[in-house]
Amino acid sequence: MALVYLDCNATTPIAPEVVAAMLPFLREHFGNPSSAHAYADAPRRAMAAAREDTARLIGARAAEIVFTGSATEANNLAILGVARVLGPARRHAVISAVEHPAVSEPARRLQELGWSVTVVPVDEYGRVAPGDVAAALRSDTGLVSVMHANNEVGTIQPIAEIAAIVRAHGVPMHTDAAQSAGKVALDVEALGVDLLTLAGHKFHAPKGVGALYVRTGTPITAVLAGAGQEQGLRPGTENIAQIVALGAAARLARERLPEAHAHLRALRDRLHARLSQEVPGLALNGHPEQRLSNTLNVSFPGVSGVMLLQRVADQVAAATGSACHAGDAAPSGVLGAMGLPGARIAGAVRLSVGRYTREDEIDAAAAALITAWRELTVAEHG
Amino acid sequence: MALVYLDCNATTPIAPEVVAAMLPFLREHFGNPSSAHAYADAPRRAMAAAREDTARLIGARAAEIVFTGSATEANNLAILGVARVLGPARRHAVISAVEHPAVSEPARRLQELGWSVTVVPVDEYGRVAPGDVAAALRSDTGLVSVMHANNEVGTIQPIAEIAAIVRAHGVPMHTDAAQSAGKVALDVEALGVDLLTLAGHKFHAPKGVGALYVRTGTPITAVLAGAGQEQGLRPGTENIAQIVALGAAARLARERLPEAHAHLRALRDRLHARLSQEVPGLALNGHPEQRLSNTLNVSFPGVSGVMLLQRVADQVAAATGSACHAGDAAPSGVLGAMGLPGARIAGAVRLSVGRYTREDEIDAAAAALITAWRELTVAEHG
Repeated sequence: MALVYLDCNATTPIAPEVVAAMLPFLREHFGNPSSAHAYADAPRRAMAAAREDTARLIGARAAEIVFTGSATEANNLAILGVARVLGPARRHAVISAVEHPAVSEPARRLQELGWSVTVVPVDEYGRVAPGDVAAALRSDTGLVSVMHANNEVGTIQPIAEIAAIVRAHGVPMHTDAAQSAGKVALDVEALGVDLLTLAGHKFHAPKGVGALYVRTGTPITAVLAGAGQEQGLRPGTENIAQIVALGAAARLARERLPEAHAHLRALRDRLHARLSQEVPGLALNGHPEQRLSNTLNVSFPGVSGVMLLQRVADQVAAATGSACHAGDAAPSGVLGAMGLPGARIAGAVRLSVGRYTREDEIDAAAAALITAWRELTVAEHG
Repeated sequence: MALVYLDCNATTPIAPEVVAAMLPFLREHFGNPSSAHAYADAPRRAMAAAREDTARLIGARAAEIVFTGSATEANNLAILGVARVLGPARRHAVISAVEHPAVSEPARRLQELGWSVTVVPVDEYGRVAPGDVAAALRSDTGLVSVMHANNEVGTIQPIAEIAAIVRAHGVPMHTDAAQSAGKVALDVEALGVDLLTLAGHKFHAPKGVGALYVRTGTPITAVLAGAGQEQGLRPGTENIAQIVALGAAARLARERLPEAHAHLRALRDRLHARLSQEVPGLALNGHPEQRLSNTLNVSFPGVSGVMLLQRVADQVAAATGSACHAGDAAPSGVLGAMGLPGARIAGAVRLSVGRYTREDEIDAAAAALITAWRELTVAEHG
């Protein structure tokens, strides 16, 4: 396709290896893994292997992985599932100002349930200061949730520092790592988190599957009610083909991480260099170093990001923000939380590369964006 | 495989046509349907078509279909989602004594939230009497949920009669039709229900996708919190390949229903006839006529169903009850609710046929079960 896909933070192509791993579970091994007969054997074994592979991606044990139908569901399980266990003396939560709605909306739900929620600010790069989290902790704090890497600007949070503070207070620490897997190393021990969310479709598994890492001993119970699957934490017949896919994608992500990191960063930085060279005043949004290797959020001066992308609609597929808000007219809350001026927010475009992005695509996309930017600025001023 | 699969109420093989429909969305059309660029077009169109096909299966309009990650999630959305909207004056629910845990557990959750729940009994055939539902209604009743067909014995409930009573009282009526689609005609107008649950994997779609029919105007809000997908009722990036699969399975189920019904009933009744002929005292569990065309739940006299199935483990894959409980030692709650004596419950086996079951498989399974039953009874008495 001539349309260059630079929207890997919205979703990624499914890896051919992942499709291949799924097919036997779509075509042949259809059994219900909870059945007592032999048709359950292959699905049950495959699910155990997928759990192992998923755990290994983040340095966890297989028993600490709960498969869900999405990262949104995993975030709901983490936040509302912990809240369901904690007593009335623990009704305060801390989140960051740049969380995805899959975290900020469950936090809003906590408020409906009588919790208070402190929203910790971010700096101009979208970073949370660990000291701000420390200052937000109270004697009744029951949960802290700070995302691992931001979906819009790619800024990576100092989760290990934050988690050390939070856990020293005996408070469970959750991080939404939906955007991080496959782009940056994730290790639940190094991070020191109790709960961590994964989204399959952000690292070349299909949409419709996610996972929650739950450190042994974390106070949590199911949010959805039903039968006892997934150690009682996620009822419903297991989504076997997708779970196998998640495992295969996790294995690939782990094996390829070093080369992936180099590949993604080279492409991203090539794109950034091209654009910077030809677009004076182009501004990088997000942290210059502590940032996902695949994410380039830049503001084009003097134009609207929406109009710029419309102008290149036949050449470049990218976004001005989260796909979950593509229909909204409202400007990005993330860039607003970073304190950026309105004109810079209006000119922002998120360009996110992936495993299958090629160098020639980067060059074509850069050329298209530069041309469109020139045409728009000439049209405006000429 | 020489192992005859007679456990289609636990899960069904995915139809080849369904796998074929999914593949382009695993291999090519990977876009996020919420994106604003052209990669979203094919997924968005396919999702609209799937919604149309799913709606048509049950006589609904496309806008009344909410896709979920499972039937369990759809039941949670129906029950807890209605409860979240209703005020403190409506805190009483009515369910039947034979609901799946995906309904009875959300109802238990309602009790935690301060609701009271009336459990309406069933007769010896597993049928709910509409008059019992009428008698259970109170001025504060906020929801009634009675399953369409039972997963263990196949008994079909008089939902149209029940719904007429319930809706005349201005109370929303939900039915879990997870076991019914593709086996019996479903029409939300004829049934008169406000909410109806579908489970993809029970009618030849993959596991990991379900749907909730929500009649326009029904008071309901999302249970999971996040972004605004599915008209705000189900957040999370859409599970596109599985949604396409559900649509394809729904289309197949609708087109083939007349022949499917005849095929399933012929196989089921052939199996029943063989067994009855050779096993004196074999007892049918469930309603003799008002019963799913594919479901045969029979009690073998003088033996344990578990031991019988263990003995034929290399020849017949079936269950003594719900797969969701295959690990439990507890006897079936459904048969208990029907008031059957303990020996009959202990000897019960659920044999459920499907679209791909062949006549020769029925004959082989019948022979294996008869032989095993004889060996067990001889062993016991000899």
